[in-house]
Amino acid sequence: MLKKITIKDIANIVGVSTTTVSQILNNKGQRFSEETKQKVFQAVEKYDYSPDYFAKNMVQRESRTVGMIVPDVTDLFFSKVIEGVETYLNRKDYMLLLCNSKHSTEMERGFIKQLQNRSVAGIILASPNALELEKKMKHLPYILIDRGLNTREQGNILVNEYDGFYNSVKYLIDAGHTKIGMLTNETGYYEMTDRFVAYQKCLKDHGLEFHSEFVEDGPVTIHGGYVATRELLKRADISALCCGNDQMAIGAYRAAFDQGIVIPDDLSIIGFDNLEITGYLNPPLTTVEQPAFDIGYTAAEYMLHAINFPDKMIPNKLYQTKFILRDSVKVFDR
Amino acid sequence: MLKKITIKDIANIVGVSTTTVSQILNNKGQRFSEETKQKVFQAVEKYDYSPDYFAKNMVQRESRTVGMIVPDVTDLFFSKVIEGVETYLNRKDYMLLLCNSKHSTEMERGFIKQLQNRSVAGIILASPNALELEKKMKHLPYILIDRGLNTREQGNILVNEYDGFYNSVKYLIDAGHTKIGMLTNETGYYEMTDRFVAYQKCLKDHGLEFHSEFVEDGPVTIHGGYVATRELLKRADISALCCGNDQMAIGAYRAAFDQGIVIPDDLSIIGFDNLEITGYLNPPLTTVEQPAFDIGYTAAEYMLHAINFPDKMIPNKLYQTKFILRDSVKVFDR
Repeated sequence: MLKKITIKDIANIVGVSTTTVSQILNNKGQRFSEETKQKVFQAVEKYDYSPDYFAKNMVQRESRTVGMIVPDVTDLFFSKVIEGVETYLNRKDYMLLLCNSKHSTEMERGFIKQLQNRSVAGIILASPNALELEKKMKHLPYILIDRGLNTREQGNILVNEYDGFYNSVKYLIDAGHTKIGMLTNETGYYEMTDRFVAYQKCLKDHGLEFHSEFVEDGPVTIHGGYVATRELLKRADISALCCGNDQMAIGAYRAAFDQGIVIPDDLSIIGFDNLEITGYLNPPLTTVEQPAFDIGYTAAEYMLHAINFPDKMIPNKLYQTKFILRDSVKVFDR
Repeated sequence: MLKKITIKDIANIVGVSTTTVSQILNNKGQRFSEETKQKVFQAVEKYDYSPDYFAKNMVQRESRTVGMIVPDVTDLFFSKVIEGVETYLNRKDYMLLLCNSKHSTEMERGFIKQLQNRSVAGIILASPNALELEKKMKHLPYILIDRGLNTREQGNILVNEYDGFYNSVKYLIDAGHTKIGMLTNETGYYEMTDRFVAYQKCLKDHGLEFHSEFVEDGPVTIHGGYVATRELLKRADISALCCGNDQMAIGAYRAAFDQGIVIPDDLSIIGFDNLEITGYLNPPLTTVEQPAFDIGYTAAEYMLHAINFPDKMIPNKLYQTKFILRDSVKVFDR
């Protein structure tokens, strides 16, 4: 095996100190000339030098990896969150150990243990389950994207889903709709309690009665939305449908098409998330934007804050949503 | 800090040897009774025992992590591949370090280095770039999902895209279409050379002339397909459009809708990938299935084969595609 090139070798080749090399490679080399920086980068490239995190690990127990657990890597919302996390971590020379819990609490528990065994610097957890985390995480920092289910004082990233959903229902009422259905998910993993409560409250605030037969529960997937809408349309005479998320709305479109129901003339539909694809549907879907990429990016930012300043509080963040008006809602003349 | 529970403690509690515990925990305990296995699992649960991979690392240099580099984690095809990889690894107690190269060769190179610094056991690389991998990977095993661009004798997972695309074009010709366009990507990262060559060859085999103005190049995204189709429809009088992938086809739908073009009456469209959503479009999209989950699952399986049997050849696999007939193609009476 060839002798491994060291930071000292690089310093000698370029003719600078090891501190200079180290600072330039760690993005702390602002005070050095462009020429010096280029020389260092060229030498690093030419001699294939790389700092050995593995060796570092043994001494510092610093893996420069962050674990992340999501309920479904193929979910269009979570894949944007992952992209945000990865983008921030990458800029900071951290890497991402990704775990797909497939909506299982048991798998989440297993992953938390496995990630600790691999000495991650922290865990970002996208989960709506109450998991007794304080005990499980020991002294490991963690950031929650969990709809506030694991209450603590710091490191919570939340979205004001209540207001977002309330505004959607209000928009439908203002447009003249009185028979408004909802696709929700109250029994499964991806609980939508806030959205469901907002739906009920908004109806009440506007003097409309709540009909339980206007609500259908189902998995938060395209297929789930398809099946739920098909069931709902069998029994409920509704003119509008608020869907728990965009994927359900895409399924609702299909269920309507199958029955020759025209959107929005016969049925108005609103989604939630503002996935890229919703702007391309026919008709383009009116929906509520959640900043998925930003949520991930901020979670990673807070994670590194927690790792680097273990004695400081981790910030909290509450995102507001944005109503995205497109063409899937009929406005009645009053 | 509490004394950490060891494998010896577990063995004493259950009343078996440490070898027995080790074999049961490593899924090599077939010869032990169900009762013994349950006792071991219960003790492990109760006393919160977990093998310390970090300590193991120091001795065995075995991280039980596999690196994976994909061009885009939010791409609907790759997120299914990731799900397949993660599913297999998880069953084998391995974890996944995920890297998002954002279509950049430079980032791929950086990740290969960073993954090695973190002592991954191997790398799964989804990339269509020629990367001089033999040199870069040193002695690390790797599996390629790369359309055959980095030619080697083992560990290649390929899809017969040529035949898949050829069959689509042939289907259109058999249905009576003679003016068939294509959305492709020849200049960017996600090269579709096989699909483009199949398109040209199929036209030729059936006595149809190739018109370069019937082809438009663009990014392999929904928006890319939208823009490309809009341009194509300005200049080309086509009755059918073969899209390089499903995401482009979704964009093509939108571009057609915008101009009042009815699918399939005025324009037939075929995609490639068979993403879940394509069955829910209006009309449901005729497309070509690639086994994305299986590709990922098999890549992970081959990876562990390579890790565990470093002296054996890694298998190769060539997947065939499947034509999925739905409602986006008009069949002319002959």
